[in-house]
Amino acid sequence: MKPTVMSHPPTGGCVFQNHRRPLLVKKFGGTSVASVERIRNIARIALASQRAGNDVVVVVSAMAGETDRLLKLAHQMLPLPDSREMDVLASTGEQVSVALTALAIQAEGGQAFSLLGHQLPVLTDSAFSRARILRVEQGPIRRALAQGRIVVIAGFQGVDPDNNITTLGRGGSDTTAVAVAAALNADVCEIYTDVDGVYTADPRVCPSGRKLNSIPYEEMLELASLGAKVLQVRSVEIAMKYEVPVHVRSTFSEEEGTRIVAREQVLEARKLMGLACERGQARVELLGVQCSPEQVAEVTDLLAELNVSVDMLCHARCGQESTRTDISFTLPEGDLLRVRPHLGQLSKRLGARELRVSSNLAKVSLVGIGLRSDPGIAARLCRSLNRQGIAVSGLVVNELRVSCLLESGQADDAIRLLHDTFELAGETSAEALTASAPA
Amino acid sequence: MKPTVMSHPPTGGCVFQNHRRPLLVKKFGGTSVASVERIRNIARIALASQRAGNDVVVVVSAMAGETDRLLKLAHQMLPLPDSREMDVLASTGEQVSVALTALAIQAEGGQAFSLLGHQLPVLTDSAFSRARILRVEQGPIRRALAQGRIVVIAGFQGVDPDNNITTLGRGGSDTTAVAVAAALNADVCEIYTDVDGVYTADPRVCPSGRKLNSIPYEEMLELASLGAKVLQVRSVEIAMKYEVPVHVRSTFSEEEGTRIVAREQVLEARKLMGLACERGQARVELLGVQCSPEQVAEVTDLLAELNVSVDMLCHARCGQESTRTDISFTLPEGDLLRVRPHLGQLSKRLGARELRVSSNLAKVSLVGIGLRSDPGIAARLCRSLNRQGIAVSGLVVNELRVSCLLESGQADDAIRLLHDTFELAGETSAEALTASAPA
Repeated sequence: MKPTVMSHPPTGGCVFQNHRRPLLVKKFGGTSVASVERIRNIARIALASQRAGNDVVVVVSAMAGETDRLLKLAHQMLPLPDSREMDVLASTGEQVSVALTALAIQAEGGQAFSLLGHQLPVLTDSAFSRARILRVEQGPIRRALAQGRIVVIAGFQGVDPDNNITTLGRGGSDTTAVAVAAALNADVCEIYTDVDGVYTADPRVCPSGRKLNSIPYEEMLELASLGAKVLQVRSVEIAMKYEVPVHVRSTFSEEEGTRIVAREQVLEARKLMGLACERGQARVELLGVQCSPEQVAEVTDLLAELNVSVDMLCHARCGQESTRTDISFTLPEGDLLRVRPHLGQLSKRLGARELRVSSNLAKVSLVGIGLRSDPGIAARLCRSLNRQGIAVSGLVVNELRVSCLLESGQADDAIRLLHDTFELAGETSAEALTASAPA
Repeated sequence: MKPTVMSHPPTGGCVFQNHRRPLLVKKFGGTSVASVERIRNIARIALASQRAGNDVVVVVSAMAGETDRLLKLAHQMLPLPDSREMDVLASTGEQVSVALTALAIQAEGGQAFSLLGHQLPVLTDSAFSRARILRVEQGPIRRALAQGRIVVIAGFQGVDPDNNITTLGRGGSDTTAVAVAAALNADVCEIYTDVDGVYTADPRVCPSGRKLNSIPYEEMLELASLGAKVLQVRSVEIAMKYEVPVHVRSTFSEEEGTRIVAREQVLEARKLMGLACERGQARVELLGVQCSPEQVAEVTDLLAELNVSVDMLCHARCGQESTRTDISFTLPEGDLLRVRPHLGQLSKRLGARELRVSSNLAKVSLVGIGLRSDPGIAARLCRSLNRQGIAVSGLVVNELRVSCLLESGQADDAIRLLHDTFELAGETSAEALTASAPA
């Protein structure tokens, strides 16, 4: 799944002068638009920013719970609903939000103009329910801004080249916001949320979790991929590609949150950024597979065909018999339903001696830089967990992360333990760690 | 308010052969899509029709109550919300319905394809919340039908030339359906509703009210204008202009309803078609206005400016003084709020001696043909009401109707009485009436 190339959009035949006012894109998620009163709060934030001299573009999600309500209706109709019609249905949630937000801004004395995905347009490919943005038109936004309006854009939705409504998948409004900020060359894309930034570990699990002031794109990408729910992965990819400064901050306070920026702009010289945890993981093990250059490709082809996102794929030679190997991988438990019917056949085709499926697992990941080249970190992680009686049933290490697989019930303990072990609570822990790692 | 010219649409560059299968447009209102189970019922009706050899286009409204829920949200935000954003909000109701209806058809084993107002497009003018259709594109519908699909179109919504979302006003889905039927030159436009046809009088008020088998466009237009809620007025205008055969029928039975057709196709030779009633009427009287050719124009200009639909506008010379006249008109009570602040000034400008405003009135109308040329009917109507102690405080007669104004509380009695007086319950009453009218 290579990211689709998103070129900087043409300006629709109009020539715009470089704007001189700073341009801010502000994205508000479902909890920030959950009620009339909260939408008023968004309006006040947007207007205060405009009055302070900025051009303001607001991107909103559906009211919390609305998307689930709509999907439930569809599933009542049909267990596996057609994805084109699902997107027509699901995109109404954001449409309601933009209208109410525009009205709220007007109620507070401002001027607002809403734009839906197909009006802008936010052009996407045709992969319904998980479409990727190809291009964001900036003309309509520029025109409305030039008239002194706050532009309110529906997140999550787009339109494909055949004029079908598409949606971008869970968290897609983050991606809309970053893509809009990239197209407009905005000064910052502010992601307003109900937490006040990106933490070294989820503070609900790990009380010593500390808010990061800044984090490089690469590490944020890993954290987002590994279960940190603050941002959709795709939004970080686009931010990184177009170097859009992103600011994750709280809707309910004016405090500084976490800046996601290029590595050279991160002021804290930290090696380790934080811990992420994905629960609800399952693991498939194909043991004693006959060696052939095609084995792993067969597994990954099948999983790609089923549209399952796989992690921690390992294959290792079995001890004595050099003609046999083990292949294992993890996937979200929710995808197991789709994958399971195919596993028996796959196992037979590969000549596997045994097929094992385990679930109720969690993947705990330590994210930082240079982790592959520092084997001391993986070793220290395993030793620390084992000492507390937490069994690690799988481990992968790459440049930016060390992930271990363990029982779901032990995930919280593991996070607290590793947060202490790697001294993530301290401002300078990373430096200290680097020094002590080889020990 | 002249009807906008709606030309037959071009076919978008594609050349289509004349379809040989009959083409039916079926419109389902809010109560017909009020629940998942009811939407399944629509799917079954559409599929049965397709399997019987027809091409089928379905037009749906929002689920009953949904539009009101959305409008309430907007009014919480702002008492007089911006109409552009209101249309963005309100149009989501139909969008939910088309997606669910398409899914329901798929669940029943059919193929369905939804089209929103902006996707088709249904091109309208820019009068938000009461836009008029300019053109309906038929290309996307033809293509989907040719693929064996049932096309599900969102009623009530359109798009203006600047790509803004518009809506067509209450009952606008009827208009969408008839305009689509006109564009496609459909064999019939079926309006499915929770009543089983058009009645001589509302059967809930008048138990002897009888279902009409057919009614000419002109009389249906009057009935719709005068409070019969089965069809939006604009839809009847378009049906008449393009001679679209309309069939008003029940969603819950297969029985024949009422056919709305050209006069020469109406089999029953009836003079009187039925009674309609509009409650919640107010009346404004400007008494002793100084005569000038501009007086009435001033009144109508003001009301047009305030977008108030006025009826029963009368002006009559005062008895002795030939330089003074009275002007009176009725309007919906709901519009009085907007009009009232302007009445004092208007009265002063016209030099009126007295301004009277009365409300809580009802307008009861007898609809038929040739009523102006038959003064016996108006006389008989007044005599009949007076004999029962029902005071008539206003009367207008034109070619197609006699309307009288009376106290709201007496409206039901008046309808039952007039239904008897004019023998509307009997199949041949009209003929009998014509003979006895001069008596």
